[in-house]
Amino acid sequence: MLRGKQTWWFENRPVIIGTGTVVGPDEGAGPLAADFDLVHAELDLNQKSWEKAERLLLEQASDFAIKNAGIRKDQVQFYIGGDLLNQLISNSFTARDLGLPYIGVFGACSTSMQSLALAAHLVNSGTAEYAMAGTCSHNCTAEKQFRYPTEYGSQKPPTAQYTVTGAGAAVVAASGSGPVITCATIGKIIDLGISDPFNMGAAMAPAAVDTIQTHFNDTGRMPADYDMIVTGDLATVGHRIAVDLFARDGVPMQDTVFSDCGLMIYDIERQKVQAGGSGCACSAVVAYGHLLKRLQRGELKRILVVATGALLSPLSYQQGETIPCIAHAVAIERGDA
Amino acid sequence: MLRGKQTWWFENRPVIIGTGTVVGPDEGAGPLAADFDLVHAELDLNQKSWEKAERLLLEQASDFAIKNAGIRKDQVQFYIGGDLLNQLISNSFTARDLGLPYIGVFGACSTSMQSLALAAHLVNSGTAEYAMAGTCSHNCTAEKQFRYPTEYGSQKPPTAQYTVTGAGAAVVAASGSGPVITCATIGKIIDLGISDPFNMGAAMAPAAVDTIQTHFNDTGRMPADYDMIVTGDLATVGHRIAVDLFARDGVPMQDTVFSDCGLMIYDIERQKVQAGGSGCACSAVVAYGHLLKRLQRGELKRILVVATGALLSPLSYQQGETIPCIAHAVAIERGDA
Repeated sequence: MLRGKQTWWFENRPVIIGTGTVVGPDEGAGPLAADFDLVHAELDLNQKSWEKAERLLLEQASDFAIKNAGIRKDQVQFYIGGDLLNQLISNSFTARDLGLPYIGVFGACSTSMQSLALAAHLVNSGTAEYAMAGTCSHNCTAEKQFRYPTEYGSQKPPTAQYTVTGAGAAVVAASGSGPVITCATIGKIIDLGISDPFNMGAAMAPAAVDTIQTHFNDTGRMPADYDMIVTGDLATVGHRIAVDLFARDGVPMQDTVFSDCGLMIYDIERQKVQAGGSGCACSAVVAYGHLLKRLQRGELKRILVVATGALLSPLSYQQGETIPCIAHAVAIERGDA
Repeated sequence: MLRGKQTWWFENRPVIIGTGTVVGPDEGAGPLAADFDLVHAELDLNQKSWEKAERLLLEQASDFAIKNAGIRKDQVQFYIGGDLLNQLISNSFTARDLGLPYIGVFGACSTSMQSLALAAHLVNSGTAEYAMAGTCSHNCTAEKQFRYPTEYGSQKPPTAQYTVTGAGAAVVAASGSGPVITCATIGKIIDLGISDPFNMGAAMAPAAVDTIQTHFNDTGRMPADYDMIVTGDLATVGHRIAVDLFARDGVPMQDTVFSDCGLMIYDIERQKVQAGGSGCACSAVVAYGHLLKRLQRGELKRILVVATGALLSPLSYQQGETIPCIAHAVAIERGDA
């Protein structure tokens, strides 16, 4: 049911019964490496193209999610996924190989929580017993498509972000053991006029703030109701802006731990990742790999994951358009089990 | 609830209370011209780029849908849409201007029924009272992105299809007057190995057949239960293949009117559209403009619209990949009103 204006309330408490996370070497060199199901030593995964490598990441993450859920692949009734590549080819090919009914979604780097919210909605409403959400990104496919091929060696400003190489998938079920999805707030497009694709954190920060404040208004919750609120990939620049915007509006974000997946996945000081991580996989692998493990260990009880997306295309940028941004938030709690 | 394996059953019978359809000059010269809300005389809609023209089509179709529904824009709780352009920019910018919570979806030319199915699901489950689905395509943006800019004047084989310039939107509501959505069958990816982007009808036909047969299995319905079953954009080549596949499998499609939106929107003999229409807008404007009017006039009582999508990207084609295809079916009936 709807609570407030934009929040889906999941009264039947769908459960995340299994996740899969697969990452590349840079993410494997970061502080969360131990939390992922598989770390690849090679960026190309021994594939002939970056695109085939990205697809393999998602195929592996899906396989891990289903295996960790303890179910058979043919028990998953719907697969919901998307990625950054034009026409979502990583997901279309993965869905083909999975052989499951498929709903392609696009929210750029907000795809992780967009697909999880939809999977939870299907399960909560009784339309599915098992639904899987998944997403992926690869540093070299994203750079090639949105900016320059990495082989070209172009320099980037410090406000730029580093696309995560990885994939994350989650199986949502009507019952079972695992963290519970209690609600999701679907975002609006916010576009304050930023057109610099090397500063996406600044472009996305107002969308994250809008969705989080809407979430509080819709649910009556406050920052203190969460042990942790994480945005998807605002990174250094965007996170600072979000903190400032909350302070301006008097939202007591100091009552919770407010962080960003793009800041958590790398050692920002030591690794050469400019302002921090980005890409569809950033919030997916941090949430499904790291944060859910912390929930299961009892270190966290209730979190809000707010995945952020910059919905630009190279063409819209070249034509002088500003960057439309969006954020979708999903609240996840420790299950009773 | 789920019926069979892939079919969402909408027991609360969500209603299409208003639609909007806007097309370009070629569609205005076709046999269905009188059924559209607006026909533009100029392909560029007096915009500076083809992309801005495409976006304007969708903005106008959305405005018509909301106006024809007799509600205010701010009553629409969620907008679900997608298009063919990389990163769905037509929809992202339209969603920005609409100011509504937005779920971006991609199913290539199956986006029309994919978004309508999701809107119906939200309304049926009580998560929304009003949800809007929308999609659009433009001949010149699609040709430029997937093949060659139209200004280049490249020749095309007779199996090629002609992307519809247009946009369609539908407001789905929990109650009201209009045609009723009773169920939707979500498709799987079917890929029989065709890699020729100038023969998408042949590539998509098996996906359409798979979804339609699954729909019959899931619901216990037969072709005779529908006054009309239309695919999205198989056009001449794909439609013939679909007819052959049904005959091979002994499905009595002769018991219904089996047609294709890509064959209906143009006068195939007279207009220079190769095998027929395609593009996200093809099934959207034919269904929302023409077919729903026939339902409301009582000429049809129950129809199945099976939108078909070829999920290739120029990059996947250049890398020698085959074309993954999908089809989503939505059953629509005359309302009681």
